[in-house]
Amino acid sequence: MKRTTGPLRVALLGHGTVGAETARAVTGRAAELADRIGAPVELAGIAVRRARQLPGIDDSLITTDAQALVSRGDIDVVIELIGGIEPARSLVVTAMEAGACVVTANKALIARDGADLHRIAHKQGVALAYEAAVAGAVPVLRPLRQSLAGDRLQRVTGIVNGTTNFVLDRMTRSGGTLQGALQEAQRLGYAEADPTADVSGADAAAKMAILARLAFDTELPLGDVHTEGIAHLGPGDIAHARANGCVIKLVGICDRTPDGVNARVHPTLIPLEHPLAGVRGADNGILVEARAAGELMFHGAGAGGLATSSAVLGDLVAVCRDRVAGAGPERHSVSRVLPVRPLALVAARHHVSMFVTDEPGVLSRVSAVFAEEGVSLETVRQEGLGSAAQLALVTHLATDAAVTEVMNRLRELPCTRGTIRSIRLLGTRQKATS
Amino acid sequence: MKRTTGPLRVALLGHGTVGAETARAVTGRAAELADRIGAPVELAGIAVRRARQLPGIDDSLITTDAQALVSRGDIDVVIELIGGIEPARSLVVTAMEAGACVVTANKALIARDGADLHRIAHKQGVALAYEAAVAGAVPVLRPLRQSLAGDRLQRVTGIVNGTTNFVLDRMTRSGGTLQGALQEAQRLGYAEADPTADVSGADAAAKMAILARLAFDTELPLGDVHTEGIAHLGPGDIAHARANGCVIKLVGICDRTPDGVNARVHPTLIPLEHPLAGVRGADNGILVEARAAGELMFHGAGAGGLATSSAVLGDLVAVCRDRVAGAGPERHSVSRVLPVRPLALVAARHHVSMFVTDEPGVLSRVSAVFAEEGVSLETVRQEGLGSAAQLALVTHLATDAAVTEVMNRLRELPCTRGTIRSIRLLGTRQKATS
Repeated sequence: MKRTTGPLRVALLGHGTVGAETARAVTGRAAELADRIGAPVELAGIAVRRARQLPGIDDSLITTDAQALVSRGDIDVVIELIGGIEPARSLVVTAMEAGACVVTANKALIARDGADLHRIAHKQGVALAYEAAVAGAVPVLRPLRQSLAGDRLQRVTGIVNGTTNFVLDRMTRSGGTLQGALQEAQRLGYAEADPTADVSGADAAAKMAILARLAFDTELPLGDVHTEGIAHLGPGDIAHARANGCVIKLVGICDRTPDGVNARVHPTLIPLEHPLAGVRGADNGILVEARAAGELMFHGAGAGGLATSSAVLGDLVAVCRDRVAGAGPERHSVSRVLPVRPLALVAARHHVSMFVTDEPGVLSRVSAVFAEEGVSLETVRQEGLGSAAQLALVTHLATDAAVTEVMNRLRELPCTRGTIRSIRLLGTRQKATS
Repeated sequence: MKRTTGPLRVALLGHGTVGAETARAVTGRAAELADRIGAPVELAGIAVRRARQLPGIDDSLITTDAQALVSRGDIDVVIELIGGIEPARSLVVTAMEAGACVVTANKALIARDGADLHRIAHKQGVALAYEAAVAGAVPVLRPLRQSLAGDRLQRVTGIVNGTTNFVLDRMTRSGGTLQGALQEAQRLGYAEADPTADVSGADAAAKMAILARLAFDTELPLGDVHTEGIAHLGPGDIAHARANGCVIKLVGICDRTPDGVNARVHPTLIPLEHPLAGVRGADNGILVEARAAGELMFHGAGAGGLATSSAVLGDLVAVCRDRVAGAGPERHSVSRVLPVRPLALVAARHHVSMFVTDEPGVLSRVSAVFAEEGVSLETVRQEGLGSAAQLALVTHLATDAAVTEVMNRLRELPCTRGTIRSIRLLGTRQKATS
């Protein structure tokens, strides 16, 4: 990396909540940042979509020509806060090719093109940092890459979407519908007008792709992240979970076995005593399992302009420090392509519930299906309800393929009634690796 | 920092549990570490107290002359795992003066001499890393220094001693005595034969001194950390806490106000809904409050050879990466001396309990003492017990000086009986800053 001697010149792309907070810090806390970095930092320009005055910012720094700003060649760090794929991608690439380091909060871009962008950064000898892209202010990417760099990561389990966590938490507390909880989230600013990316699990999937890539140092195409959202969940599911001593949360999991890596996002039953069950409201929580370190939990605010700006500024200070020190960039983080283990082979405990006719022999017929597919049962609960009985079964670890086959066969049994539901169950902390 | 081109040469001082695990990783996972660092790492020597063979280690690498090993001048990184002040301090200084970076797990040394050692490291242009010294494998020092480098830290609240946490957790679950829980901890390897440093709070105080120094970037002499241990706690205290919806834990707190910094360690009542209440067994948990990031919680195994070795290896990889990249060392981390705010001025909520004679006017006389010392009350609970009544009061935020004065005056009241107990109460998460 080019060793910088004078003040470090920072260009900001975007001036929304996070951008404004970042600009305020760079200009208002100049002495403090200079002290931490070892050189002063100055704002060299802010690119905005429509020309306008910005409070506390000299007009001469404001431009609508982001492309010209990042091409200038005298910028040390470009902070990209536009979001989305284009024009963010082109601007980031141009910036790196012009010799600037890049700090970004853009999860969509990093999830899709992170491996390519790392390659370009490596070739250009510049840094690419994006702590803010996953879990807001909660430091998890840097610990994964640095603090745990000498360990072997086995699994990352995370609540990485604050919107859906708020919605499910609200449903759990109020007993209300998803729609009602979503409207409240929108009213409080925890959900956007169009919450599709959150509700569908796509936002969480992007973050899991990033986490899997860093945790296991492998390419992992976003399309390989199995993604289920929460749109189908109703008060009945929540109540049923509660009756079983659990909460339902949208959980992302990535893990690695000798057969390869897998990343997935789906609603999950979490026992109340599990540390992730305590991640409330719009918080994020990430549980990292490593061979030597054991289980590590990171928990905090997952979003919000101020919290996200903390992560952006942390990256800015780190990148600037390295630039002042003349350090080469971190080694290319994606050095291999491990095979992707298909979801069908991923094992989990499953909670299966259904209504059955309340007559002799039903339990025997249902449990035979599980046995014939090689799925063993941990607990069985039957409760009579007039002419029908409700049956709730928890399996031991079983592959998705086997449970899917069980579900198909159960639907064909004459003794089952209505919808048969299946939801994956997180092991308790103690049983997580059992 | 000197840019290293060939393999990086690592010297290990000490071959206990952590040392053996570290040696095993450096030799057994050479390819993996080389890939992460960008250059191979080789074991250049292991200093042990008494000459002996070590499994899997070439005899020629084993020496009893640690001083000669660290003086050699061809060592890139010295990993100090001896512990204690001397000879560890001299060896670390000699190593840095000979141009080696230092990785250590030595909390006593870093707590006492960290500021000096950082100065020497800075002067010599070498790195000094000690993630393993606080909270074992839980990454907290690096996040404080790097991820949160752009934020403003306000407070760090931590359960940083696994032994006392295990003991108090055990007492909470079993209702037994401290002595019994301590013996069980010793049987399970969670406590040493002489548990004085843990029970007295000294171990936690050393860790809080380190955390305060990094969090607030200031010198903080270990002697200025107010330290109370857990030796006086009995089953009655635990039961009383439980009856109030709390657990008792040994908590370290460091915070910063415009008046200065304060660090302290003392038994603390924690409401069950507070995230630190969920830190069980010998685990460690650290809650960081920062202006922009909000509340961040880090939780995991605080000790154990394998977990500690994860932190040591993480530091080793980070230090080696920087050395390969030719980065200058991190800037001196202790750049100022903020005033220390005396404990007398530190405000907390206090839980005060006592037996009083069960007669009219007692509550009025007791509460008058609080009022006259300017301590306002949040809750008062009185329960009659035959001829005496038990009185439990929770104060709003009040300074230690005021509560000490209240306690002195309560003891002189003719209506109080026996010991009057006071214990500080952690705010709930929501009320933490109220």
